[in-house]
Amino acid sequence: MEKTIFYHAGCPVCRSAEEEVIDLIGKENLIVVHLGEQREQIGKAETFGVKSVPALVTGKGNVLHINYGASIEEIKN
Amino acid sequence: MEKTIFYHAGCPVCRSAEEEVIDLIGKENLIVVHLGEQREQIGKAETFGVKSVPALVTGKGNVLHINYGASIEEIKN
Repeated sequence: MEKTIFYHAGCPVCRSAEEEVIDLIGKENLIVVHLGEQREQIGKAETFGVKSVPALVTGKGNVLHINYGASIEEIKN
Repeated sequence: MEKTIFYHAGCPVCRSAEEEVIDLIGKENLIVVHLGEQREQIGKAETFGVKSVPALVTGKGNVLHINYGASIEEIKN
């Protein structure tokens, strides 16, 4: 199975969600991308359909938006 | 580890999230609760802090709200 990508932007909501997701899915199954620091990944995240962070993109390419932290537009600014 | 509970209300957003969550976590690690049909579980979900469905409550009792389907208040009506 392709790895799941966890997108976040370092906000407290994201950090808390990250711990939960690691517990649930396992760190070894997860790629963690900080869009605030890895800004070149923002376009790819948008291509997957990520509208806000934190969000998971599954191995099949489906997006699960988790709790509501920040919109992609806010990260861009 | 305690099982994770997936709360939903049968809406299309919930169904799609359910498939993803089962893929990610594994059906054997998940208790699925349909709050539209198991209305006696609504109070317990609220106690955990569930504000909308679909949502996951982890074994530690933390809530992850996923995508946005319906608020608990809407299910009550």
